[in-house]
Amino acid sequence: MTSRIILNAFDMTCVTHQNPGLWRHPDNRADRYNTLEYWTDLARTLERGRFDAVFIADVVGLYDVYRGTAAASFLDADQVPVNDPLLQVPAMAAVTERLGFGVTVAVTYEQPYLLARRFSTLDHLTGGRIGINVVTSYLDSAARNLGLRRQVDHDRRYDLADEFLDVVYKLWEGSWEDGAVVKDPERGVYTDPAKVHPIGHSGEFYEVPGIHLTEPSPQRTPVIYQAGASSRGRDFASKHGEALFIIATSPEQARGITDDIRDRAEAQGRRRDSVKILTLLTVITGATDEEAQATYDELAAHASLEGGLALAGGWTGIDFSTLDPDVPLEYVDNDSLRSVLAMFTTADPTRRWTPRDVAGYLAIGGLGKVVVGGAETVADELERWIEVGGLDGFNLAYAITPGTFEDFVDHVVPELQRRGRVWQDYPAESDGTLRAHLLDAPTGLVPDEHPAARYRGAFADGASAADGTSPSPFSDARDPLAAAPRAESLVNP
Amino acid sequence: MTSRIILNAFDMTCVTHQNPGLWRHPDNRADRYNTLEYWTDLARTLERGRFDAVFIADVVGLYDVYRGTAAASFLDADQVPVNDPLLQVPAMAAVTERLGFGVTVAVTYEQPYLLARRFSTLDHLTGGRIGINVVTSYLDSAARNLGLRRQVDHDRRYDLADEFLDVVYKLWEGSWEDGAVVKDPERGVYTDPAKVHPIGHSGEFYEVPGIHLTEPSPQRTPVIYQAGASSRGRDFASKHGEALFIIATSPEQARGITDDIRDRAEAQGRRRDSVKILTLLTVITGATDEEAQATYDELAAHASLEGGLALAGGWTGIDFSTLDPDVPLEYVDNDSLRSVLAMFTTADPTRRWTPRDVAGYLAIGGLGKVVVGGAETVADELERWIEVGGLDGFNLAYAITPGTFEDFVDHVVPELQRRGRVWQDYPAESDGTLRAHLLDAPTGLVPDEHPAARYRGAFADGASAADGTSPSPFSDARDPLAAAPRAESLVNP
Repeated sequence: MTSRIILNAFDMTCVTHQNPGLWRHPDNRADRYNTLEYWTDLARTLERGRFDAVFIADVVGLYDVYRGTAAASFLDADQVPVNDPLLQVPAMAAVTERLGFGVTVAVTYEQPYLLARRFSTLDHLTGGRIGINVVTSYLDSAARNLGLRRQVDHDRRYDLADEFLDVVYKLWEGSWEDGAVVKDPERGVYTDPAKVHPIGHSGEFYEVPGIHLTEPSPQRTPVIYQAGASSRGRDFASKHGEALFIIATSPEQARGITDDIRDRAEAQGRRRDSVKILTLLTVITGATDEEAQATYDELAAHASLEGGLALAGGWTGIDFSTLDPDVPLEYVDNDSLRSVLAMFTTADPTRRWTPRDVAGYLAIGGLGKVVVGGAETVADELERWIEVGGLDGFNLAYAITPGTFEDFVDHVVPELQRRGRVWQDYPAESDGTLRAHLLDAPTGLVPDEHPAARYRGAFADGASAADGTSPSPFSDARDPLAAAPRAESLVNP
Repeated sequence: MTSRIILNAFDMTCVTHQNPGLWRHPDNRADRYNTLEYWTDLARTLERGRFDAVFIADVVGLYDVYRGTAAASFLDADQVPVNDPLLQVPAMAAVTERLGFGVTVAVTYEQPYLLARRFSTLDHLTGGRIGINVVTSYLDSAARNLGLRRQVDHDRRYDLADEFLDVVYKLWEGSWEDGAVVKDPERGVYTDPAKVHPIGHSGEFYEVPGIHLTEPSPQRTPVIYQAGASSRGRDFASKHGEALFIIATSPEQARGITDDIRDRAEAQGRRRDSVKILTLLTVITGATDEEAQATYDELAAHASLEGGLALAGGWTGIDFSTLDPDVPLEYVDNDSLRSVLAMFTTADPTRRWTPRDVAGYLAIGGLGKVVVGGAETVADELERWIEVGGLDGFNLAYAITPGTFEDFVDHVVPELQRRGRVWQDYPAESDGTLRAHLLDAPTGLVPDEHPAARYRGAFADGASAADGTSPSPFSDARDPLAAAPRAESLVNP
């Protein structure tokens, strides 16, 4: 039986996401990121292509390692200027019915109490089509503008993120019981106060004693997206993540990563297939292989050396301006550089990688691989990645937007549909939520083995209040109120 | 010459905003606050009625003074559950062209760096139709969930809000020069780094050294809405506010407030008419006076005593459950109650106000007055408020939604248009921004005398850097980059 391939579009509310220099391509409309129309048009295209979701990255901060300044990133609009990643989502949801939306949030700078409300609101407004990617951000320049001297240490950031998720899980899953919202005008009860519970959270980083401000949304907990390359990050992702992004330079390399992630998920009591793993990829396609190659060559001509090295500087912490762009990295005596080099040599071990090569590699789709070809060639290659890599799908970046996505939908999707790899239509039997179709979860709720699930009913009357909270402070006051007459003419103009 | 009347709709992302008990009315659709359709339908209705804007209130916290519990507010859905106030705005903007959107933010719980980005993003996506209401929130239950023991002191909150606005003004007005975004593919310059400046803010409450993350939006600084009843609050509002909300129980009382606000604005170097003042009002109308009165009586029958006293408890800090609902307040020996009483006795001095009367008063439109009648009766009364009260317009609350707004648009707006008080259409000559039509500001930017304006160009090269920042750290690196060849084929698949 051939399995379905999950399609996720990767974008960011900025001009240059993973394609330094390509803003100069005449067909790139990325500078329309400031308009609602760019986003609503894109949403319609992706839904036409039966994508599971569009994912919006976010980076709060500047790429200022290269030359010790952000100048090069300004010239190529490398992830700056950058808008808030949430605010175009409601407009995209208004013009679609089933497309999901993943959004990045750097928990390091957010209050869980307000963030939980924000995502519950999005989940309500979209009818349960929201996912969240919890990141622990990596740029010092962001921290400094949020009142911190520098980033929290890497491992401590994961401790903080763990507690952050604990708080929002409690709010999303445990604060409002099913059936708390009654809407009974006869009895005069909109919400039954006895079914709303404070979460009583008191931890190392956060104090959140109260109730969730919103009523339960279709999914309660949004689909948890994750990406994590380090061992600590991969543990975190294997614990919380339902859809995981990875980066690999070959299907074989991907297999090592997917096996490791599924092992870790299993070690945490989750099913191996409860985690959907998507690898970063960019597809350049056309009516034929030749047309695709011509498109690729024309795109490649717009790559920017310094824009690429500016991004690479932010991702690695290495100032590439101090290196000769044409001297292979292997001759440099530097541990960080050796790990960068290792990443690239797996992409092409026959090659001696220079900074110029690195910038070139990044210029279409960042650290992910590029697949070039007509529909059949691309479909063959995607199937090979899925089978060999043990993958569930792809996180598709663009070279130019919306062109790269439109080409994929027009050429590759019909071929994948013919092969039974992509839906002809979204499954009618699912409840319309993102979790239902992305994770085969008919109810739209997190599965029992997910860490969020243990807070279901955790704060209700009679529950073993795990956190020592006294349940239902509202219930005492309820009976006299319910007994009181509710409809009286009281108004005086 | 008759002046135009500004129309602002007052709503909140919850079920019961200022109408405790009226969720039980069969025509009230307020429980659809969770859907995009409620908001997009409302936006279309208001634009049809040539409203200047819709304003979204927000309260983070519970009304838990009454009986020492939030139970009564749950029963009547008094501002709980409550969604995030920003997230429906992009969808409303997508279906309208000129309607403006004001949104409330409690600065006490936000980071100015991220909040500035959020509102710049909204201003971009809406084409400059955004306003912001900076509030210093008043409920202890909110503070506790955001890691504070209790609210910051009242006057300190205004100090904090003052500095907060200072930071975001710097980001919005001073960080990016006009013309910083070049988009020149030939020269390879998307943004000219020499025209982007860090704001170098270091104050009592906030450290924000960096640049604004977004490029300049149509209005740069969103229209500043304000409401403030205390003397300190009114000074703050007179300094920053461009559109001010007041509450008065009569046009004569309104006049005292509007004169005072304009005096204070003038004392701060602003023009008396640079502040547009809108009073809270609810209009119940119909085809005739009789029909309107019948509608009113039917609405009033759904008021809730305890829902009203729960809201009143949150607003005043008084637990009305300790009082006999039918004993006039004048017999109670309590300073807070005397000031509540003073508010109501100006509404009707002939009456002996009981807690039951107070709840009844609040049940349609909260503390604002209710005007009942057919189109001509209402238009006459609105004109009287404008002339006697020295007002610029109205902040219109609903009894039921969208019914109250639809009735106003269908009956009253045509009559006001006949009288030259409301536009037949939005002015074509303005640039489409909210500030352009609300404040007769053709450029859409804050006027020179507004406190935000002093940061225009404040951080540019050669400017007298008011805050001692060294301008343009990015400019040094620019020349070599600009001279480098920009178009090279770099990409390798």
